[in-house]
Parts: sequence; C-alpha cells; structure tokens
Amino acid sequence: MHYREVETAREYVARLETGADWRAEIEALAEAVEADAAWFTALGAVQDAELWFYEQDDCEYYPIELEEPLEVASCVGNVSLLDGEEQSSSSSRTQSDDDRFAHTHAVLSDAEGTTYAGHLNEATVWAGELHMRVFEESLEREYDETTDLDLWL
Amino acid sequence: MHYREVETAREYVARLETGADWRAEIEALAEAVEADAAWFTALGAVQDAELWFYEQDDCEYYPIELEEPLEVASCVGNVSLLDGEEQSSSSSRTQSDDDRFAHTHAVLSDAEGTTYAGHLNEATVWAGELHMRVFEESLEREYDETTDLDLWL
Amino acid sequence: MHYREVETAREYVARLETGADWRAEIEALAEAVEADAAWFTALGAVQDAELWFYEQDDCEYYPIELEEPLEVASCVGNVSLLDGEEQSSSSSRTQSDDDRFAHTHAVLSDAEGTTYAGHLNEATVWAGELHMRVFEESLEREYDETTDLDLWL
Repeated sequence: MHYREVETAREYVARLETGADWRAEIEALAEAVEADAAWFTALGAVQDAELWFYEQDDCEYYPIELEEPLEVASCVGNVSLLDGEEQSSSSSRTQSDDDRFAHTHAVLSDAEGTTYAGHLNEATVWAGELHMRVFEESLEREYDETTDLDLWL
Repeated sequence: MHYREVETAREYVARLETGADWRAEIEALAEAVEADAAWFTALGAVQDAELWFYEQDDCEYYPIELEEPLEVASCVGNVSLLDGEEQSSSSSRTQSDDDRFAHTHAVLSDAEGTTYAGHLNEATVWAGELHMRVFEESLEREYDETTDLDLWL
Repeated sequence: MHYREVETAREYVARLETGADWRAEIEALAEAVEADAAWFTALGAVQDAELWFYEQDDCEYYPIELEEPLEVASCVGNVSLLDGEEQSSSSSRTQSDDDRFAHTHAVLSDAEGTTYAGHLNEATVWAGELHMRVFEESLEREYDETTDLDLWL
C-alpha cells in the first residue's frame, strides 16, 4: 500500500451542464480552477452513457454502450495529471485540457431500478451535482507494468 | 458548467436511527445543525425503500417500490434550500423542516447481491452511518426550465 | 438520530497494492497513520470478492462469493475501533491491527456492466485508489441490541 498525506486547498460545488459530457465537465472544472489533483463525488442523471470494463486478462478496456436515460446513483473519482506532465506556468510547452484526467467510476440505473456500473468514459448530462476537493499536492499518473494501467503514487 | 467555491464550516458523523426514515434523518440532522448547504456520503441497511426514476421525456418521477431488507451499498447527496427560502433567524416567516431538502441517491442490494439504484425518496433505516460536511455558503434550488427540475447554482 | 461534530485532522490518498486484500489495505493505512476514526471513498478494480448481506430476520451475515474480475464502481466506508478499545500510547495492552475496523460497502460490476453490491468483506485488489479523512475524535463501536450489530455513537 502506497499513501501520501494531502491537504485540501480549495473546495467546489458544481452543476454539470445539461447536454454536455459528464467527464468533460469535470475536467473543465479542474482546468478552470487549475486543479492538478482532486477528489470528487457526484450524483445526477444522464441521457446515455459509455461505461468501460477493464479486462484484466488481456489488459484492455471494453465498452458497454447504454442508449437510454439513466440516473447517476453514485459517482466517485479523482483528477490527476497524465504522464506526469505538470501544469507549470513557467513551462514553455503548450498545455491542453487533456492533461488533466478525471478518473471516473459511476453506478447508473434505469426506470426499473436496474443498475449498470463501471469506469465512466462518457455520458450526456441531464443534470449533475458535484463536490470536488482540490489538493495542494499534484497527483501524476505513471505507467504500471503489472496492470498495464497509468496509476498514481 | 457552473461552479462555486465553498468552504467547509463544520463536519459531522451521524448514526441514523433504526426504524426512522433514511432521508428524514438526514434532513433532521441538517435542521439540528442549521445546515443550509451540505454534502454527504453514507452507508448502511434499510428495511424497505422507495426509489424514484426521473423520466426525462415527460419530466416526471416514477416510483420503484422495494419491500424487503436491503444493504445501502452507496449513498451520495447534498442538502440545499428549496425555492431559495433562507433560514434566517431574523425572518418573520415560520420555517418548517421541509425547506431543507436532502437530495439523496442510493445503491441498494439484496441477499443475492442484486442491486437497485436511483433517487432515494424514502426508506426505513435498519442501520445507517453518515458523514456530512456543512458549507459556509448556502445552496438554493430554483426552477430550471430545460429539465423541469429544481437545480442549484 | 445520533450525531457528533468531528474535525478532520489529516487527509490521505492511497493506491491499494495489486494482489493484496482491499479491506486489509484500508486497515493497514489506518494503522500506519494511527487513525482511530476516518471516513473514506474509493474506486478501482478487484480480481474476486466476497460480499456480505445482513439478514435482518436472523441477524446474521451471509456471504456472496464472486470469482471473477470486477470494477469497484463505488466504495464508501469508515474506520472505527471495535469494542471501544482505544489506541492509547499510554496503554499497556498489546494492540493488534484487528482493533481498527474498516466498515466497507462497495458496488462491483462485471464485463456486461451488471452490478453486485453489499458489505465488502474481502476482495483481491487489481487497482485501487482511495481518499481517507482522519478525524481528531475516535469512533468506537459498541453492541446494539436491536440490530445485533456493533454501531458507533
């Protein structure tokens, strides 16, 4: 187990925009408030969704497409920098939004209460309410050979 | 995307009372500590539950009734004021508990591990454990034409 | 409803170790940072899992065994001391890790997005990301006659 003490610098509540992409909205917030590391929980509803399941045998993500309105019964995730690319103002590199990655897991449910869950790649927001705490420290994902995933710490 | 910086004024842990209503207990806590805006997560078990699914086509909630003991595998939500009615001590209006609304989503599961999820309207507590952070700022819900819902921000 | 104001002393993010037990990792973190009370949320994936369902009629936990890779779509829980045994440095008793109990609920999902949820007893970590807030105050579980459970507050 690897752990680090962190300090919450700032906190935000957000309403995700109807019609926008759920995860892109979270990354847009991270970008707007210059969060290099954050933790969030959220709830709401979406008009459709693409979940991803990580196949541990072949180390590949496989999509699960859902083309119907769904409640977001739970959403937990974090924001970190991919590939350890820091958002430094002194950097001469051009930074894009893509550097801040919102690792997002969600539990969705339909009109019968039936649930679908996994890694949320994209989903069209119907209504979304989010709480995000931004850490003083940055979190940077780096390649992990065992899982073939980008992990932080 | 609409967002606001908030500051956590106080934090609470609570044990929801066996036999009481899950959401009413959360609203009672909000009332007791005079929380006009809060964010919470919780876990536990209930004796029954009524979930709501929001039908986006006709903008109506439809109930899903569950008459059996269920684990509360996840519960995420927030407290806000409905209709922007502030809990001001200088107000001459008579305030009721109803003004503080706990928007509550939950994932429930039965003896087979099968899950049911959605907007939690009511549920009889078996055991419940909750963490609530109260914000300095208030959150007030107002009518949103697009979704026909009361949204904040 | 029973509640207590708490204060966050410290916060941590952790990466749970691939191949280790999910809940043991959380308890190891609590042990490492001497957390007598904490609240956490987490996400990730596991290689298998044993969920427990609490049968409210006979007040017994029954296991649900899952022998396949699963996403951890949501994980919410808290750390407390069992039986009110305090982790006092002035204590002459020998303390073991077992005193710190991570009450852990989780929602898991498979390759089809189908979900399984409940009280998480054990699960082999594939990848896990956790945020834990440690409280100044301790939480001690004591026997509750009505539910036949160890509850705090």
